[in-house]
Amino acid sequence: VLYYLDLFGIAVFAATGALAAGRKNLDLFGVLVLALVTAIGGGTLRDMALGATPVFWITDSTYIAVATVAAVLTVLCARHARLPRRLLPVADAVGLATFTVLGTDKALKLGVSEEIAIIMGVMSGVVGGMLRDVLVGEVPLVLRREIYATACIAGAGAFILANRLLADPALASALGAFVVLGLRLAAIHWNLSLPVFAHRDEQGR
Amino acid sequence: VLYYLDLFGIAVFAATGALAAGRKNLDLFGVLVLALVTAIGGGTLRDMALGATPVFWITDSTYIAVATVAAVLTVLCARHARLPRRLLPVADAVGLATFTVLGTDKALKLGVSEEIAIIMGVMSGVVGGMLRDVLVGEVPLVLRREIYATACIAGAGAFILANRLLADPALASALGAFVVLGLRLAAIHWNLSLPVFAHRDEQGR
Amino acid sequence: VLYYLDLFGIAVFAATGALAAGRKNLDLFGVLVLALVTAIGGGTLRDMALGATPVFWITDSTYIAVATVAAVLTVLCARHARLPRRLLPVADAVGLATFTVLGTDKALKLGVSEEIAIIMGVMSGVVGGMLRDVLVGEVPLVLRREIYATACIAGAGAFILANRLLADPALASALGAFVVLGLRLAAIHWNLSLPVFAHRDEQGR
Repeated sequence: VLYYLDLFGIAVFAATGALAAGRKNLDLFGVLVLALVTAIGGGTLRDMALGATPVFWITDSTYIAVATVAAVLTVLCARHARLPRRLLPVADAVGLATFTVLGTDKALKLGVSEEIAIIMGVMSGVVGGMLRDVLVGEVPLVLRREIYATACIAGAGAFILANRLLADPALASALGAFVVLGLRLAAIHWNLSLPVFAHRDEQGR
Repeated sequence: VLYYLDLFGIAVFAATGALAAGRKNLDLFGVLVLALVTAIGGGTLRDMALGATPVFWITDSTYIAVATVAAVLTVLCARHARLPRRLLPVADAVGLATFTVLGTDKALKLGVSEEIAIIMGVMSGVVGGMLRDVLVGEVPLVLRREIYATACIAGAGAFILANRLLADPALASALGAFVVLGLRLAAIHWNLSLPVFAHRDEQGR
Repeated sequence: VLYYLDLFGIAVFAATGALAAGRKNLDLFGVLVLALVTAIGGGTLRDMALGATPVFWITDSTYIAVATVAAVLTVLCARHARLPRRLLPVADAVGLATFTVLGTDKALKLGVSEEIAIIMGVMSGVVGGMLRDVLVGEVPLVLRREIYATACIAGAGAFILANRLLADPALASALGAFVVLGLRLAAIHWNLSLPVFAHRDEQGR
C-alpha cells in the first residue's frame, strides 16, 4: 500500500510542477523537467544526503514513468478543461503527507537519530516544491506559508511517537500522514478566511 | 578520444558560463564560479545521484584546470574582440553532444536500466546550464527551448540503440553524438527562421 | 577547539540566513529553512561530492540544534534591538575562516589532491550563502564581491602550505583561518572606503 501511495504522491507533485510550468509558458520539455524535479527532487536530496545511492528512482524506473505520464495528462487536462481550484492543493496535501511519512521512515530504517529522521521527512516533502519555484524564478512558496512545513514537522513527529508507542508501523504511518493532511487541509481553509495572517506578515520580522 | 572530447565539452561549457557572468557584470570570481558550475554541474549531480563518489572532477584535477583556463581565456578574448555570434551555440552543441553520450555511457556501465541511462545523459548535458541560469537569476534557457533537451533524449536513445545493434561502442558513441549535434544545429537554424514557434508558445500551456 | 569553532561558524551562518529571511518578510519556517540552508549547505554539498555520506549533520545532530537556536535567537534579537551594522560581516568572516580551513582539512584527510582540497574548502565556505541568496531570489552576493572567495582560496592555500612546512596541524589551521579573516576584514573596510571598485565593476567584464 505504501508503495502505491508513494507513486500517487509522485504523480500529484508532478502535476503541480507541470501546472507551474504552464503558468510560465514553458515548452513541453520545460513542463516535463519541472514535473520531474518537483516529484523526485525531495527524495533525491534525501537519498544523496543519507548516502543511500543510487537514489530511489534510479533503481526503480516506475517513478520516472509515473511522473512523466502524470505531467502529460496534466497538460492535456489543463488544455481541455478548467480544473476545480481546490483540487490541486488538496491532492498536494495528500502527496505531502505520504512523502513526509515515507521519508521519515526511510531515514529511520537507515539508522539515523529521530530528530534527523524528522528533518529527512520534511526534506522529502518540501524540497521538490522549492526547486520548482526557484527554477521558475520565484521565492519558494514553502518559505512563505508557515503551516506547510509545520504540518510536515508535526506529522513526522507524530509518526515517530506512534511508532514507539504502538509497535504497529502501518498504523503509525497512517497517523503521521493524517496529521500532515489534517493540518494542511485546515490551513488551506484557514488561509482563505483569515486575512489577518497577511497583515501579521507585513508587520513581522 | 572520448576523454579529450569530454575535456573539450568542459572547456566549451565553462566559456558559456563565463560569458553569462560577463553579461551580469560579475567580478572575476563570479566568472570563475559560474564557469565551473556550468562545466561540471551536470556531471556532478549525475555522479552524486548514481553514488559514483567521489565525483569525477575530484579524482582527476584536469577537469577543474581546463575549465579555469577556458574561463580566463574567454574573459580575455571577450575584452579584446567581438566573438562571432554563431560560434558559441555551435560549440555549445558539440559540448552537449559529448556530455550526453558520455553521461549515458557512464550510467550504463554502472548497471542502471536504459531509460534511467537516458535521463542521466540528459542530466549530464543540461543541468550545468540550468544552474548557470538560476544563479544569475533567470529562468533556465533549457526549459524554454524545446529542441535543446529533446536533442539530448534523441541522441542518448540513438546511442543505446546503436550500442545494442552494432556491438561497436565507438561507432555507437559517434552516432549518438551526431544525433544531438545535428538536431541542435538544425534547431539553431530553425529558431531563427521560424517565429511561429514563439507564437505557439504564447497561446500554449 | 576546532569542533567548537565549527559550531560557532554554523551559528553565525544560521544568523545571516535568518536575517536575510527577515528582510524578505518570510514566515517563521522560512527563517528556519534559510538559516539551516545557509549554515549547512556548503558542508552538505562538499560531503555529497566527496561521497562522505551520511553527511556531517546526519551523524551529529548538534549541528542542526545549534543552527536552530541561533536562528531563533537572531529573530528575537532583531525584534528587540538594532544590531550594530558591522557585527554581522565580522562574525560572518569568522565563520567563513573556520569553514574554509575545516573543509580543506576534511577533504585532505579523505585523500584528495591539494588543488581539489582548496576547492572543497571554498565550497564549504561559500555555497551556503549562495543557496541563501538564490532562495530569496537574488544573484549570490559571493559572485559579486571578489574578495570574498579570493580570501577563501588564499586561506585554504596558506593552510595547505603551512601543513606541509610546519608539521603542526593546529598552527597550520590557525594560519589558514587568519589569512581568510584578515583578508575579509580588510575587504570589509576597503569596500566602504573605495567606491572606485564599483566603478571598475560597471566598466568591466
